[in-house]
Amino acid sequence: MKKLINSPDDVVADALAGIAVAHPSLAVDAKNRVITRAAQTRIGKVALVSGGGSGHEPLHGGFVGLGMLDAACPGEVFTSPVPGQMLAAAQSVDAGAGVLFVVKNYTGDVLNFQMAAELAVDEGIAVETVLVDDDVAVQDSTWTAGRRGTGATLFVEKMVGAAAERGASLAEAAAIGRRVNAASRSFAVALTSCTTPAAGRPGFELPEDEIEVGVGIHGEPGRSREKIRPAREIVADAMAAILDDLPPAPGDEVVLLVNGLGATPLLELYIVVGEVASVLAARDVRIARSLVGNYVTSLDMAGVSITLCRADQELLDLWDAPVDTPALRWGV
Amino acid sequence: MKKLINSPDDVVADALAGIAVAHPSLAVDAKNRVITRAAQTRIGKVALVSGGGSGHEPLHGGFVGLGMLDAACPGEVFTSPVPGQMLAAAQSVDAGAGVLFVVKNYTGDVLNFQMAAELAVDEGIAVETVLVDDDVAVQDSTWTAGRRGTGATLFVEKMVGAAAERGASLAEAAAIGRRVNAASRSFAVALTSCTTPAAGRPGFELPEDEIEVGVGIHGEPGRSREKIRPAREIVADAMAAILDDLPPAPGDEVVLLVNGLGATPLLELYIVVGEVASVLAARDVRIARSLVGNYVTSLDMAGVSITLCRADQELLDLWDAPVDTPALRWGV
Repeated sequence: MKKLINSPDDVVADALAGIAVAHPSLAVDAKNRVITRAAQTRIGKVALVSGGGSGHEPLHGGFVGLGMLDAACPGEVFTSPVPGQMLAAAQSVDAGAGVLFVVKNYTGDVLNFQMAAELAVDEGIAVETVLVDDDVAVQDSTWTAGRRGTGATLFVEKMVGAAAERGASLAEAAAIGRRVNAASRSFAVALTSCTTPAAGRPGFELPEDEIEVGVGIHGEPGRSREKIRPAREIVADAMAAILDDLPPAPGDEVVLLVNGLGATPLLELYIVVGEVASVLAARDVRIARSLVGNYVTSLDMAGVSITLCRADQELLDLWDAPVDTPALRWGV
Repeated sequence: MKKLINSPDDVVADALAGIAVAHPSLAVDAKNRVITRAAQTRIGKVALVSGGGSGHEPLHGGFVGLGMLDAACPGEVFTSPVPGQMLAAAQSVDAGAGVLFVVKNYTGDVLNFQMAAELAVDEGIAVETVLVDDDVAVQDSTWTAGRRGTGATLFVEKMVGAAAERGASLAEAAAIGRRVNAASRSFAVALTSCTTPAAGRPGFELPEDEIEVGVGIHGEPGRSREKIRPAREIVADAMAAILDDLPPAPGDEVVLLVNGLGATPLLELYIVVGEVASVLAARDVRIARSLVGNYVTSLDMAGVSITLCRADQELLDLWDAPVDTPALRWGV
């Protein structure tokens, strides 16, 4: 294993030190492992808190800032943060209007955020939770009961973040988050495995000519292992899985995320975008907005995930609202 | 080789189709292989044109937009674009104030841009060229006489782009570009090789426990092949090479780019940022601005490049000026 790290034990602490240097708009609480905006939450604004295992950067720390999260809690690599972190985050950013937890559907995250919610309520903080479970590949998985939460997390955090800036109440923000999640579907394909610093070897073995179709963001098994094929065919299968489950009507508009899993060249992601566009055009579905790049990654995994959110004008307005975070920035 | 492509011959054309879908702010001339802003150049503004082999995305197409480039010419993967492309780009974006070519120092690019400049002058277009040669690793290289052009290209395109928006003349814009290049130094380390679609196998072989120190963005050899070591030691060596060559005085300010070569997790890039900051703090050099992510890539190469630009207030102002491109966006 070759990685740009000092030691497997120090990965998260060292990365947090770098985040503090790279992003003056953020405040890093190294002791509690909480990333917040440098500016305090505006009094009366619902505060958004998310978190999860490290290794998916820029998720979640890179989404902290105006129009998205108020705080992020990074766990160890591919390991849920602990309730104490989440409570510290909630206490740090609550501004009287309550805290919304955005939680990807992995059993560890779900249990820990649930415990943190109870602790926060005990401290007098109102809490709502939005569970993200957009990955249509499989029903249950290695660390998940139900569907896994992946790329739609970005959509939820962006759109709910915009709603919170506009003054949505805690209940309204939670309702929007659930609506975004319900309108979103994802599917991922891996060309290679990924290697955690602690393990030092790939999480699974993938032969030189095979791909994992429907992979999870920690390398969880997908639907099938198949031979590598042209991008057009890989995308057609992924889109069929998404569209069968969503399914959009002709004339519908979607927000599209073509997301690199960490080691895929942007050149290839653009090829995927082109193929996705062809599939959607044939169904008379319009790409209203799109985003391409590495946003919800799996360390050094080569591969791509595709996420669609069927969006009405309200969701598009929330998407277009100003955002000023390390990973997403527009309108400011 | 596993890649998300349809065929090696179609990579650039297919990627251009995706770029057109993903970025409505751009116009893609698929026939001439020229990417321009969707909006025409403002009359009287110097037009910036760059280009080079594909495989370094988002460079250069991702830097087309307000405050940076007016046009980019993508060649085949790791292959210079041809003079006809560059001429078409110059003709498309010239708005009467002339065209500035930003050229990375590779022999093919230099010769082709030189020929394009002659063709453009024949067409009545004033042309200046800024050559970028910031990589301190080696003097000559596989495809280069002199130093290679790498990460500082981003600094040149950003700062000259801002100057052009503010009304700099062609000569003034070229002078700023040369000043930025002269103030910038880069050094890169590869953990893995990269594989072009056409070759289908890695450009060089790197054993499982070795790194290429001083690598070029096409996998050109560096200064030495060494055993993998902690990030702190790798960064110390890279920074020594940069700082010995620059060298900044105590109290100087720099713009820092920590750039992933394509397959390195952002988590690791943040660790590098932290180590760079420690080295600079010990020299009393201040990081005035920083950028971390994949900006000047080498397909699927794992590794990192570090670029410093010693910046006075004028260059910092140009850095801070509004930019609205697919890969860099702030102040708008």
